[in-house]
Amino acid sequence: MNEDIRLQLIKIGNDAKKASNSLSMASEDKKNQALMNMAELIESNQDEILKANNTDMRKAEEKGISDSFLDRLYLDKDRISSISNGLRSIIELNDPVGEEIGRWQRPNGLDISRVRTPLGVIGVIYESRPNVTADAGALCLKAGNAVILRGGSESFHSSNAIHKFLVQGLEASNLPKHSIQIIPTTDREAVGLLLGGLNGSIDVIVPRGGKSLVERVQNEAKIPVFGHLEGICHLYVDKSADLKKAKDIIINAKMRRPGICGAAETLLIDKNSDESFLPLLINSLKDSGCEVRGCEETLKLTDNIISANDEDWSTEYLEAIISVKIVDGVEEAISHIGEYSTNHTDSIITEDNDIAEKFMREVDSAIVMHNTSTQFADGGEFGMGAEIGIATGRFHARGPVGVEQLTSFKYIVRGSGQIRP
Amino acid sequence: MNEDIRLQLIKIGNDAKKASNSLSMASEDKKNQALMNMAELIESNQDEILKANNTDMRKAEEKGISDSFLDRLYLDKDRISSISNGLRSIIELNDPVGEEIGRWQRPNGLDISRVRTPLGVIGVIYESRPNVTADAGALCLKAGNAVILRGGSESFHSSNAIHKFLVQGLEASNLPKHSIQIIPTTDREAVGLLLGGLNGSIDVIVPRGGKSLVERVQNEAKIPVFGHLEGICHLYVDKSADLKKAKDIIINAKMRRPGICGAAETLLIDKNSDESFLPLLINSLKDSGCEVRGCEETLKLTDNIISANDEDWSTEYLEAIISVKIVDGVEEAISHIGEYSTNHTDSIITEDNDIAEKFMREVDSAIVMHNTSTQFADGGEFGMGAEIGIATGRFHARGPVGVEQLTSFKYIVRGSGQIRP
Repeated sequence: MNEDIRLQLIKIGNDAKKASNSLSMASEDKKNQALMNMAELIESNQDEILKANNTDMRKAEEKGISDSFLDRLYLDKDRISSISNGLRSIIELNDPVGEEIGRWQRPNGLDISRVRTPLGVIGVIYESRPNVTADAGALCLKAGNAVILRGGSESFHSSNAIHKFLVQGLEASNLPKHSIQIIPTTDREAVGLLLGGLNGSIDVIVPRGGKSLVERVQNEAKIPVFGHLEGICHLYVDKSADLKKAKDIIINAKMRRPGICGAAETLLIDKNSDESFLPLLINSLKDSGCEVRGCEETLKLTDNIISANDEDWSTEYLEAIISVKIVDGVEEAISHIGEYSTNHTDSIITEDNDIAEKFMREVDSAIVMHNTSTQFADGGEFGMGAEIGIATGRFHARGPVGVEQLTSFKYIVRGSGQIRP
Repeated sequence: MNEDIRLQLIKIGNDAKKASNSLSMASEDKKNQALMNMAELIESNQDEILKANNTDMRKAEEKGISDSFLDRLYLDKDRISSISNGLRSIIELNDPVGEEIGRWQRPNGLDISRVRTPLGVIGVIYESRPNVTADAGALCLKAGNAVILRGGSESFHSSNAIHKFLVQGLEASNLPKHSIQIIPTTDREAVGLLLGGLNGSIDVIVPRGGKSLVERVQNEAKIPVFGHLEGICHLYVDKSADLKKAKDIIINAKMRRPGICGAAETLLIDKNSDESFLPLLINSLKDSGCEVRGCEETLKLTDNIISANDEDWSTEYLEAIISVKIVDGVEEAISHIGEYSTNHTDSIITEDNDIAEKFMREVDSAIVMHNTSTQFADGGEFGMGAEIGIATGRFHARGPVGVEQLTSFKYIVRGSGQIRP
């Protein structure tokens, strides 16, 4: 371990803690003004950001990095506008800090309320997507939290250029400049230090990126993590499903964007369904360009599909492939999901409400659905505004992590001289 | 590490995980019936429990253990009745599982609700208080969680005897017997395994006991912990305080039970108060049998009190001693608390509501109070029913940890064929 880096990061942690103390009391107006400043500064300084991005792009191309990676890294005027508009949309969100989320009176006259408070300091570790610098910084700020950002090394110059204007936006509103900090090194050891919590300075880590990043974070973090490793989302088509709804939902859940975490990966079909169901559903998947891998029973009932092996049930394809299994009713569907679930999002398609309620009660996932597409697993679609990701743990945040999920709470007890007998 | 113990504990973890799956779907009636069975079984088998307790007491006395320790360990018929009555009082609590804690509609017609679910498996590590075996086991059960108990070694026989009837109570209601397990060894290595989470089987650890136990748990746990290390609770008397209220609250907050975590340890007094305030308050503390340790300014204004040193501000006395400091208004009070706080409970005494609201907004503690005694920091007093302890972290549970705080939640999305555009 490089001692200089260690000391530098410890200082960043201490500065963040201090900033978070004053930030926790910052007014909604001040935070919104800072966000507005940032949006304007990023637009008016786009040339500087594009130049930095150009440097990153050149280096990445020299390394021979994949096209999809380069596409995530790339910025142009439109993408910069959309970063600024993202900041403006966070202004529209309610400030959660101080919000009363419960209040009651006791027989002795004590008035007890529960109000939201910031969480403290949030560490965000992300891949080479420069826009996350602004999105994550702004969302944490809105909830009164200080944030320490660590972006992918290939986006180093772009992220730093964006960060510069976030800080200018803070300063123009008299908010502490250390409210949003970025790790000034691409050294991988820095990630290890963040995951250790920087001597208690960081309260929670949010990983944003693919499986290998999240896996490292979940394995090494010594502090709480809001995130999810994989989204093996299931659709279960019950015998009482409406065929038209089922077809539309399946195609949407798999094919709308096959690469997102809410995309369906496994289709479970009730063996008691009308026998026309399975071939119709599978043909419509194939017609939409999806590869279908079926269980033995499925193979018997359809032509020209590939056989699924055990690994398929635990694979998050993130592309136009789906595994299909015939199950004996909702019970077997629930137990299959129990075995292979990543606790993300699972949906049942049925016209039988009792079976739907049973499914949603018994499936242990952050999000359970009835007659709708798993691709709705998203903070924006839930009406939460921006989200920093989806969490599949059971602690604190579960499901979409929006501005409210980035808060804690405290109890306020108002008395008039009560003493405890 | 003894390999036998390791394997035995891994099995306990796996069994708990399995039990928690079926427990999460157990009906309120079944859980309440089990609690009723347990209460009756413990009363009707009190001779067996008292005999086991006698063994523990004899061994503890031979070791020359302190009287206060022996008192916590000791059971008699009355104490056994109170254990059974504690179980009955948990029956009265609302079952939180399935409770809807939010519901809204989206413009596309999706109906989204947030409902409570069990947390999973809870590990409870406690000292030699046999009653905690029943209290903690029952509270976790009510919230649909499996629990793994590890009591102090001196209460081994008593806790195991009580545990036996908890299991009989489960079985008589057809609930899984592994819903409440107890570690069958006093080996200290077992605690280390629990704190590691037993290969992912345990979701959260709750320590119940003194500072050394909690310190070990907080330092070694690799999974979330609900607890608090210390409660250095502050009272701040503002210049606009009502003297009568201040006197009553101070005496109650310190002296009602000086040994509990919600007892006040430091009294901060506004230097702008009427000059009669300080001597009156200090004399009433002394009259009540409390030792007073004052800052330099305090010493100038009163007679016969001991000088407080730096260590006093960060000491949880847990006895009839209080430190007193004169501060320059609410600002200095808040900054003193910020420096020495353990984020537990702090109270302001003032007739000025603006100052009270400022104090409660800016003090970062789980519980902040106005014109009332810090000894109200208790789940029962908050109306939550039984509590398993007080948490001072910012994650998931904060303040009293009752049955609701032992739950997580999930989102239920009800649609009618919606697909994402």
